[in-house]
Amino acid sequence: MSKQRDVAELKAMKRAAAEQAVLAVQSGMVVGLGHGSTTVFAIRRIGEWLKEGRLRDVRGVPCSSRVRADADRFGVPLVSLEEEPALDLTIDGADEVDERLNLIKGGGGALLREKVVAQASRREIIVVDETKLSPALGNRSALPVEVVRFAERPEREFLESLGARVTLRQGEDGRPFLTDQGNVILDCDFGPTEDPNGLANRLEARAGIMAHGLFLGLASEVLVGVPGGVRRLRPPPACASREG
Amino acid sequence: MSKQRDVAELKAMKRAAAEQAVLAVQSGMVVGLGHGSTTVFAIRRIGEWLKEGRLRDVRGVPCSSRVRADADRFGVPLVSLEEEPALDLTIDGADEVDERLNLIKGGGGALLREKVVAQASRREIIVVDETKLSPALGNRSALPVEVVRFAERPEREFLESLGARVTLRQGEDGRPFLTDQGNVILDCDFGPTEDPNGLANRLEARAGIMAHGLFLGLASEVLVGVPGGVRRLRPPPACASREG
Repeated sequence: MSKQRDVAELKAMKRAAAEQAVLAVQSGMVVGLGHGSTTVFAIRRIGEWLKEGRLRDVRGVPCSSRVRADADRFGVPLVSLEEEPALDLTIDGADEVDERLNLIKGGGGALLREKVVAQASRREIIVVDETKLSPALGNRSALPVEVVRFAERPEREFLESLGARVTLRQGEDGRPFLTDQGNVILDCDFGPTEDPNGLANRLEARAGIMAHGLFLGLASEVLVGVPGGVRRLRPPPACASREG
Repeated sequence: MSKQRDVAELKAMKRAAAEQAVLAVQSGMVVGLGHGSTTVFAIRRIGEWLKEGRLRDVRGVPCSSRVRADADRFGVPLVSLEEEPALDLTIDGADEVDERLNLIKGGGGALLREKVVAQASRREIIVVDETKLSPALGNRSALPVEVVRFAERPEREFLESLGARVTLRQGEDGRPFLTDQGNVILDCDFGPTEDPNGLANRLEARAGIMAHGLFLGLASEVLVGVPGGVRRLRPPPACASREG
């Protein structure tokens, strides 16, 4: 697979995966809307189908302030988790997908809300292009770790003690990127991770870490845009059970 | 032990425990300062000893905005975790202490920062009066769980699904109490907890839960104010190892 893959082809694969996911949306559903360059195609399609009357009474739960703006623009009504704490379905992207359908997410910075929404959803459909598939998490992506600001230095040192190369994420203005919760993101290059569950447990035990980008056992299915079509991946049976 | 115990006697026990903890502070140390009605006696004593010259060059890391104010008032210089990410010692209180020196904390609302500071400290001295001792966590205290506001309802339903009676903590003004991070606290009555580690793992896996009041394996020792003195408790050997 060429790294010089044509941008238009990638975009077509993302779009095909996202639009296929929208086939799972039914009238009356509450749908989680993830953040990113792939899911935006799903939001647009849902808006079109609402306008055409092909769908009715669909309401979205946005995973970021940008998704909120996109949904407004495309005409998808929004609802909060306070009003609808249990979602029928979520459509979200991913930065990396392994063979068990474990994910790295958070390249867009919305990992905390995306994980809350995923855990509140009965079904989590992940949409990606084929470049996101990986034999082991960490091959493609650094792991985003959201950290409360006053704990940045001790958590950075903790992450380095686990073997990560740590980079403070910066915004376009060159200042630290802040999440919707006002936290910073440390992008952690651990290399390929053999034990993502063990790593997740260690990160979750740290009080200054508010969220991390490992989404384990959460994907119900992954729709992969490939040249000329979409492949549907399902988790192996041992991974199919989901908490929450 | 009478529940009608005299307020002055309780205060004397708290004070004795806190002041004994200050004997562990040495000149030049960076000391974490927990939040609460017991630790305030330690902050005051450190300030007195700095003024008298019995201690020099001690700097404190405050666990809440109120501790910051107390330290200013008593003349204890402060430093941030950004400047000093590894602490020599922390003196903190607890709402409940079991026989393995596992703790419930967070009655004062500062649980997140207190746990960050505990994990950054080489030694964690807990100071309590004897009414805080308990055969099993959950006998005395509800468990404080700090939740990001937009996830309040799904996390409440999750906590109820684990068997908790859940109460949204309110401030003195009758509105929801907000932590220094701007989150709400759900006080969760689980009753006596047989498996605090299992409960902690389940809470930590939830994306909307920012912190919980179970402090497991973190106490290096507990100083207990009793009538006429202070008892020193140490964790059993299997619990002595600490992460971070």
